[in-house]
This record gives sequence, C-alpha cells and structure tokens, in this order.
Amino acid sequence: MNIAKENLKLIAFDADDTLWANQPLFDDVERDLRTFLAQYGTPDQLDAALIAVQSQNIALMGYGAKGFILSMIEVAILLTEGQVLGREIQQLIDQGKYLLQYRIDLLDGVEETLRQLSGAYPLMVLTKGDLLDQESKLARSGIGHYFDHVEIVSEKNELTYQQLLKRYRLQPAEFLMIGNSLKSDVLPVVNIGANAIYVPFYTTALHEQIAVAGNGYGQIERMSELIALLNGRQLL
Amino acid sequence: MNIAKENLKLIAFDADDTLWANQPLFDDVERDLRTFLAQYGTPDQLDAALIAVQSQNIALMGYGAKGFILSMIEVAILLTEGQVLGREIQQLIDQGKYLLQYRIDLLDGVEETLRQLSGAYPLMVLTKGDLLDQESKLARSGIGHYFDHVEIVSEKNELTYQQLLKRYRLQPAEFLMIGNSLKSDVLPVVNIGANAIYVPFYTTALHEQIAVAGNGYGQIERMSELIALLNGRQLL
Repeated sequence: MNIAKENLKLIAFDADDTLWANQPLFDDVERDLRTFLAQYGTPDQLDAALIAVQSQNIALMGYGAKGFILSMIEVAILLTEGQVLGREIQQLIDQGKYLLQYRIDLLDGVEETLRQLSGAYPLMVLTKGDLLDQESKLARSGIGHYFDHVEIVSEKNELTYQQLLKRYRLQPAEFLMIGNSLKSDVLPVVNIGANAIYVPFYTTALHEQIAVAGNGYGQIERMSELIALLNGRQLL
Repeated sequence: MNIAKENLKLIAFDADDTLWANQPLFDDVERDLRTFLAQYGTPDQLDAALIAVQSQNIALMGYGAKGFILSMIEVAILLTEGQVLGREIQQLIDQGKYLLQYRIDLLDGVEETLRQLSGAYPLMVLTKGDLLDQESKLARSGIGHYFDHVEIVSEKNELTYQQLLKRYRLQPAEFLMIGNSLKSDVLPVVNIGANAIYVPFYTTALHEQIAVAGNGYGQIERMSELIALLNGRQLL
C-alpha cells in the first residue's frame, strides 16, 4: 500500500464482520444444530457432514443465510438418516430466519469513521451474499447514507475487482478496499495492484501483530484506527 | 412508446421467461409437492398454505429458487402438522436444487434477435432473483457475450429504474426495457417516462391481441417479432 491523496478516488468497505458482527450469529445457529444432533453422531461425524454439505451447497447456492439454512437442514437429515421430523426442521428454519432480520450492531468506531471519511472520499459498500439480505442489513444498520455506492457480488476475487474498477473507470492505484477477510478483501485487491487495509474481526490475540503489515497491505486492529492510519499517510 | 433512433442508448432485457423458460420448472416442483401433500389437506387448504408461506418468505428472502425451496418445505411441515420426515424433505430439496442447475433452453428467436441487436445498441440483462443463481443461468444460457451489462436487482419498481438510469447517466427517453411482466418490466418503466415492450410468456390465446398496445408501451407476441417492430419504427 503506497497511496497518495491525489490518487485515491474510492474507498470500499466490506460489510459482514467489518461494519457489523455477522459470523457469530451463524455460529450460534450451528451450535444449536450440534446440540440437537449430538445424539446422532460423534463431533467428528458432524464436522464431516457440515463440511461436505456446506461446500457443495455454497458452490450451488452462494454465500448467505438461505443457503446456510438449507445446509443445516440437510445435515440434520443426513445425520438422522432421514428420520428427523418436520417440526424439528421448522425450528432450524425459524432460527435461520432470525439471520435475515437480526438487529444490526455496528462494530466499535464504525459510524464515527464513516462520518469523518464521507466528506473526504466517495465511499462504497462492497459485499457478497444474498442480494435482498445484504440490502436489508444495510438498511437496518442505519449507516446507508454514508455510502455513495452499494455493490453486492457473488464472489470477491481478482476478476471481481477488475470488473469493478472498469465499471467505475478507476485505475487500481485509485482504489482502497477495507475488510476483515484476507482471502476476499485484501489479497485479490493487492494482487491487481490496488490498495487494501486488513481489519481482522477477532481482535483478541491480535495485539502482538504489527500495526501495518509489510505484504503490500495496511493493517489495523479495529476500525477506530483507520482515521489515524489514513492521517499518518497524509490521506486526510 | 415514442422513441427515435438518435435517442435510444440502452436496451435492457428481462431474463426469466423472457430469454428462457423458468416458471414452468417452478410449477413442476409445486405440482410434485401438491401430489405428495394431497393426503394431508384439500386443494383449498394447500393453496392457502402456499400463499401464506410464500408471501411471508418472499418479503424476507426475496425471489429465487432458495427461498422457493424453503417455502415448499414449510408448506409440507405446516400441512403435515410437523410429521413430515426428513427423507421426504430431502426429496423437496433435491428437486429444488434442480432449479439451480437446469439446462437453459432459449425461447424462440432470442439468440437471432440478440445477434442482430448487439451491433446496433448496448444491451443489458436486467433481472431479479438470487445473485449467483441468475449469474449461473446467464452463463449456462450461452448468450452472455451479447450483453454489455448485467444488473441483478432485488426488486423492479420505479425507484429501481430511476436508480439504474442515474447510474448509467441516461435520460428516461434513452432507455428501452423488454420483458414478460407488466408489473416488473413494463408499467414502472412507462411510469417514469422510459420505453418498454411487453412480450407475454404464455403466447397461446394471445393472437387476438393487437401487435402494439396503446398504453404507452409496445407489445409483441414473441421475441422473434422484436426486430420487425424496431425496424418499423426506424430504430434499426
């Protein structure tokens, strides 16, 4: 990351686990499923079923709550050898529906950071998952008005970022991506010559990491450090 | 519809049931569910459950195959009072997965029409539904290369079209939408002052309709008539 103020033309933020917590809610549903299924198999069998079903379904259904619910149902059917009852499956569906309407709690420093940045640069939400679900979360978050653009994509790889830059007529050096996933938000961005800042979601045990990584991307421990990082590089 | 060649800058096509058949496959899954559930309720009870569950789920989950599968599962649970077995639900899921990977058969005249139009105007696919599912259908269709733009939206209303025109910096008069849904593809487009051509999907019994409707939009019976309509208005 080696960006100058006169170059930077668009700052994009990942949403889930960057702006608000999301993975912990999915983990809760999975934990309840594990509790329910404990009588039908060992933890190892459960892990194997979860991985097999989810990897197949993500390829077919993409990321997001609806595919996740269907995977949980299929795991329950698989582990019970088809004996699970509809009323038990309905409980899984009802938990899954919670994932589509839970109250969005912003992560620390998110709103203040967006407020300070929104006057200085055009901002974008760039997230993957189900279209309506992501639109609904952004609406529920109450921070939609800070963003000039919203892009919801099915996958975040180098091609995705290249197409995005083409669409917005940007050079790689003019684009900065901020997110919690090295795989989706950081490495493909760096690989096409654009700029990225990594904000790990689980901040525990991260205090030993250096504040700015040396692999072509910046790193902060929490969103509230973003303004300071940008200031330190004369970007604000 | 009163558009001149020098004005027209973008032609957008709906996808499902405009470029290829889609609804008949959903109808097949619903029919199989009805056969399975016939022992648990009258057709009227089944209709009531389908409408109640689907209308609630579409608001939460949007359009598309994944939400449709979940609705079919919930209807089966509701009608059997929770007694339906996992193995029966797996059959519904397997049928539903077929909706995510069926072979795309283009409707008559679609490819030839796109081939002729693609040199003359920028073309767009503008469809609602699940992101990955719609991308996958377009890839399977083999006609993706005719389109300059692909937009997948969660809803097609006047606001959607206004935002689209803003994004592409177009005036309403410069935009033409072609699709099989009066509600989604035609009326909101006409209402914002843009151009629309209605191509009903079920063409039987349509031969008595006039070739060009008088309500501010054009109408054809099948896609193969599009070129002739545009020619007749000196648009090609």
